[in-house]
Amino acid sequence: MKNQTTYRYQVATQNVDFTLRASIDSLGNYILNTAGIDAQGKGFGVDTLAPKNLTWVLSKFVIEIDSRPEQFAEFDLTTWVNQNTRLVSTRNFTLSDLEGNVFIRSLSQWCMLDLVKRTPVALNTIEDFYAPYICEAACPCEAPMRLKAIEPEVVMEHKVAYSDIDFNRHMNTMRYIGLMLDMIDIEHFKENRPMRIDVHFIVECLYGQTIKVAMQQTESATLFEVIRDDGVVACRAAFTWR
Amino acid sequence: MKNQTTYRYQVATQNVDFTLRASIDSLGNYILNTAGIDAQGKGFGVDTLAPKNLTWVLSKFVIEIDSRPEQFAEFDLTTWVNQNTRLVSTRNFTLSDLEGNVFIRSLSQWCMLDLVKRTPVALNTIEDFYAPYICEAACPCEAPMRLKAIEPEVVMEHKVAYSDIDFNRHMNTMRYIGLMLDMIDIEHFKENRPMRIDVHFIVECLYGQTIKVAMQQTESATLFEVIRDDGVVACRAAFTWR
Repeated sequence: MKNQTTYRYQVATQNVDFTLRASIDSLGNYILNTAGIDAQGKGFGVDTLAPKNLTWVLSKFVIEIDSRPEQFAEFDLTTWVNQNTRLVSTRNFTLSDLEGNVFIRSLSQWCMLDLVKRTPVALNTIEDFYAPYICEAACPCEAPMRLKAIEPEVVMEHKVAYSDIDFNRHMNTMRYIGLMLDMIDIEHFKENRPMRIDVHFIVECLYGQTIKVAMQQTESATLFEVIRDDGVVACRAAFTWR
Repeated sequence: MKNQTTYRYQVATQNVDFTLRASIDSLGNYILNTAGIDAQGKGFGVDTLAPKNLTWVLSKFVIEIDSRPEQFAEFDLTTWVNQNTRLVSTRNFTLSDLEGNVFIRSLSQWCMLDLVKRTPVALNTIEDFYAPYICEAACPCEAPMRLKAIEPEVVMEHKVAYSDIDFNRHMNTMRYIGLMLDMIDIEHFKENRPMRIDVHFIVECLYGQTIKVAMQQTESATLFEVIRDDGVVACRAAFTWR
């Protein structure tokens, strides 16, 4: 379909987990890095926005995983932007094998931030170079879940450090998910079990902060909150087991 | 030179740190993954050894960094095996820019382990397919430093989790270095300062173990020990600042 673009990748050795399949965090990295590459290639990436003191901020992220590809497997990652409201851009993704069988569906919602005023910006500000790339194709998975406050059963402390941060010294998006993955018993991942991850990013965590990652297990899901040292909830997530 | 092989890479977005240069752990990953790829391509990799119940185990690792490449920079990674003693195989590496200027030198020492007896194996066991690839070129950096017990000033606890482990559920080599990097103040990394890292791997840490990473600062170096929950020192390292 027009304005859907496909990128081919191969699962590298450094991106597999103990099952010798692509790790869950590396799949998230492939997806979010492709978002950046695609936006840049089409002229509405952070490089174009920066001189206007604008940037994209990830607000919600969903990944539905039926199966994870094995080490060295090639796959196609297709992405497109659709369903834009005034303040939220939705970017969609599918991962498929080389026969076209989709095994991961993903959806991300982005706001545009004015870096001077620190406020969200209406997307029509960039309509001249952004609107031509909006695609009619529907989202490949259900909308982000509502995520409420949790009742923590297990809490892990973590100090935001070198390997966590981006050039703004904020914690990288995928590190939130990485910390949560490290609290889940690995037996959940052994059988290549289908799962869905919903993440809401609320505010950022900064270098040097000591954060708490709180977990609650329900019948069908593992729920998380990331709480900053000033008590603010920075992020909520649900890992739903299927 | 004969039996030196060069692999070309590009610094990917997911491999940079807050300075927008290749992170130190990603450089280690490029190096160690190339060791695996090169050994496999020449017929003495873990895939060839596994049916004989043998495997390579990394014992010592040195990286000398003059400068770290920027995001999207291409570089050439050249590797060769030399100076073999009966029990230790030395594999060397240089990283250079596309004009041939070397900016990283690295050396690794490997033992071959009998997976049934859990004992080291003499390298002449695999001489028929291994010896033809030994190269005359000297090591590109000085031999591994002697690393003695340290006097811990700061100690961090870490539970070995999903993102740390390989298919044996042992902690990945580069995760030891990653944990150490996370204890060092990032101001050390801001200026792309030359450094040398020496690591000795003694015994492995396993999934679920709570380990201690102990740090001591001396005039010219930051020293580390990783101590398992049974009190055994699993790993020692020195980051020497130049």
